[in-house]
This record gives sequence, C-alpha cells and structure tokens, in this order.
Amino acid sequence: MTTTATAPIPVFEDEDSGDRKLAIICSKGSLDMAYPGLVLANAALGEGIETHLFFTFWGFDMINKKTMAHLKFTPVGNPATHMPPSLMGLPGMTAFATHMMKKQIEGIDIPEVPEFLDMISDAGGHLWACRMSADMMHLGEEDLYDGVEGIISATDFIELSAGAQTLFI
Amino acid sequence: MTTTATAPIPVFEDEDSGDRKLAIICSKGSLDMAYPGLVLANAALGEGIETHLFFTFWGFDMINKKTMAHLKFTPVGNPATHMPPSLMGLPGMTAFATHMMKKQIEGIDIPEVPEFLDMISDAGGHLWACRMSADMMHLGEEDLYDGVEGIISATDFIELSAGAQTLFI
Amino acid sequence: MTTTATAPIPVFEDEDSGDRKLAIICSKGSLDMAYPGLVLANAALGEGIETHLFFTFWGFDMINKKTMAHLKFTPVGNPATHMPPSLMGLPGMTAFATHMMKKQIEGIDIPEVPEFLDMISDAGGHLWACRMSADMMHLGEEDLYDGVEGIISATDFIELSAGAQTLFI
Repeated sequence: MTTTATAPIPVFEDEDSGDRKLAIICSKGSLDMAYPGLVLANAALGEGIETHLFFTFWGFDMINKKTMAHLKFTPVGNPATHMPPSLMGLPGMTAFATHMMKKQIEGIDIPEVPEFLDMISDAGGHLWACRMSADMMHLGEEDLYDGVEGIISATDFIELSAGAQTLFI
Repeated sequence: MTTTATAPIPVFEDEDSGDRKLAIICSKGSLDMAYPGLVLANAALGEGIETHLFFTFWGFDMINKKTMAHLKFTPVGNPATHMPPSLMGLPGMTAFATHMMKKQIEGIDIPEVPEFLDMISDAGGHLWACRMSADMMHLGEEDLYDGVEGIISATDFIELSAGAQTLFI
Repeated sequence: MTTTATAPIPVFEDEDSGDRKLAIICSKGSLDMAYPGLVLANAALGEGIETHLFFTFWGFDMINKKTMAHLKFTPVGNPATHMPPSLMGLPGMTAFATHMMKKQIEGIDIPEVPEFLDMISDAGGHLWACRMSADMMHLGEEDLYDGVEGIISATDFIELSAGAQTLFI
C-alpha cells in the first residue's frame, strides 16, 4: 500500500552499488601485469565501489619502495609480443622493451605506478600487503609504500573479502 | 502452513541460475592461456548464464583479425612443460611447440580460436574490447573480430559486471 | 512490527559466512604460482567456507602423482626476480632457483605441495580435475593425487561454482 511505481528504482540502485565490493589480488611484479589491477581498482572507485588491493608474491614489487618506480617488462615467454625469440634474449632487451611500454602508457595519459597508487589511495582504495610474502622477503612496513594500511594474513584477506567480487591477477 | 516439501526446489533454481552472470577478463595472447576463457564461457552459456568476455592487453591478440588465427605457444618461462631450458630457446621452438599444442587441442575436438569465438557469439556471449588497450595499440573496431560488440572503458566493464562472478585470466 | 533491534545481526552473519563458497581454478604448474591457490584455500577452510579447487591445464602438475612433488620455479620471463636475463638462461638455473625458493618457503613453515594438498583435503576442501586437460594429457584417475574427488567437465565446474567467489590462478 505504501509502495509507488517509482520506488523500486532507488532501492535497486542502492543494493547494486551501495553494497558492491571488489577485492583484487596483485601477484605479479612485471610492468604489464601491474596495470590491470590499478586500472580496474581506479574504475571501481569511480563507481563508488569499496575496493581492496592485496599485494602478494611478485606483486610486492608494486608496493616495495625500492622497486615500485622501476617495474620492468620483458617480452621473454610472451609470444603475444610478436618479437622473434632470438631477439628477446639480447642484452639490453628488457630495458628497451620496458622503455617502449612506458612510452605507450604515458602516451595514453596513464600515470606511473607510484602516482597511480597515490590516486587509488586518495580515492579511498584500501591497500594491503601479504604477511607470508613479507616474511619470505624479510620486509616490514617501513619498506612498503606509505599508503599500505597493514600487513595482513591470508585469513584476514579472506575475511575482508566477504561479499566481494574477486580477481587474481 | 502453505509450504510443501517440494516448494523450495523451483524457488532455489530460480535464484541460482536465472540471475547468474559471469564476466571473464582475457588478458593473455598465448595459445595456452586463450583457451581457458573460451572453454569456461562456452560452458557457462550452455548453462544459460549471462556471459561477458572483456579482452584487454595481450588478450587483444584473441580478437585482432590479424593475430586471432595465429596465436602461439612457447614453453619459455613455463617449467610445467618439462622441456630442458637449453632446448626452449632453439630457433623454431615456438613454431614447433605451437604446432604440437594445436594438434593436442584438435585431438580432443576443441575448435580453433576464431571458430570458438563464433560459437560463443552465436550462443549469445558478449564480447567487449578494452578502450585503453585499443588506444595503446592504435586499433579500431574495423581491426577487431566482427562479433565484438564494442570498445568500452574499464568503467563500462565495472558497470556491466555488476552482480557477476569474475575471473581474470 | 515484529522486527527488533537485535534481529538483523544473526541474520547477516548467517548469509555472510554460512553460505560462503570459494572456487579456485589452478591453471599453473610452476612452484611460485602453485602456492597462492593452496594458501587461499587453506585460509578459506579455516573460516568455514566451502572451498573447491579445480585443476586445469598446467595446474595438472599440482595433482599429477609424477610431478606434484617436483614443481619447479624459473626466473625466466619474470623481471620481478631481479636477476639479469643473461644469467637466467644458464644451465642449472631452474634447479638453483627452485632450490632457493623451496628453502624460502620452508623457512616460513609452509608445507610442500603434496603435504599441503593433504591438509586441504583433510580439512574438507574439494579437489577436482579438468576432463579436457586429462584427455589432452592422456591421464586417468589412477595418475592423479588420491584426494582428487573426480575428473569433471567445465560444465560441471560451472554448476558446482554457483554462488561462489571465483579466482583464476
């Protein structure tokens, strides 16, 4: 009796985006596989979605102060680069391929990894580091990007990702 | 009082498959990592699930008209191929390994990538290309497989994947 | 009128963890990418979450009796290892890098892959092998880890993962 024809729309909106949550596990430390998680997190935050990034294994390079500004890209092992395997292993190829990819990324106005993390952090995105990876690499909070909220266990991650859409990158 | 023993089953069925949605991000352009997304999408469509494939980064090779029929496989960097590293880098190894994998795939009656995309598209699967990747690679709709419905932003993908189970391949 | 202030809490709890389900697709056979699925599955089981692991493609090495105790790690193609590409291809490098990673993993009290699968299986985790991969590799149930409950199709996996959070590793 109290419902009206226009009532269902705001209610649906509310359920759909108000409660929506995204949890992305970033496990890679190469330049090409660092960006997908950052781009998706940024897009999700723009939609008002609660967004968590959990850095683990090689993904620690994305939040390690020493490496985060120096991620590299190699064509080795990736046939989609269409580079002859005989060239891939030449000295200096990783530096050259990294340089080329950075220019491409800059060309479409995508920020470098540290600036991208600043954007995500400023927009309310949550950044977490994996306890097991930190222990393996003997790294502490002082070694990690300041925006990281904490070093947490896999169990903590499972708990915080309750109800989330999940991605493993 | 009005419930019966058989009532809950149709209600559960309704909620479980009627609304189900799957969104797969395809980010790889190698032959071995192209197939998992196609196989899962095909299986989901067979179950009546709304299915979306979002091609990004190296995954563009799966929908680029020039490359989609020529995806390659390399054992380099993959110890699960059980090939001695000294052999992996030999000239012609990518071509040889690709040929062998294609024969294995053909042997179990799995179609090649372009035919598989036709099947998925015909079955109502939705194919989307990533705007950022298209810009990086200077590709337009005319360069992409005809079944691709549009070049969309990461934000568009976040919106269309509301309520979906999500996979990043 | 029948609702009370305390009623919503147990109802929320119920929906959140009681029904929670996690389905992880394990598609890699390298040592470094075998662990994330095992660690997450173990953490999820500890939280009482229904957990499924679906082994496919290279991930078969994790459940193949002949290979599961001998997964290898290679730095090749992974710039996050910070090893000069000129060293990566040296004879014996895969064995050396594998040995070093195993020591690191042992150092933080993480079990080897077969023992980890025992733990997951004992804790009620469900292990499944992919029919298509088994056919490609000409492997049967007798070749696979005893805890594997069955060789199932992609369609079966889609059905059993209804309502689950999903990850592709």
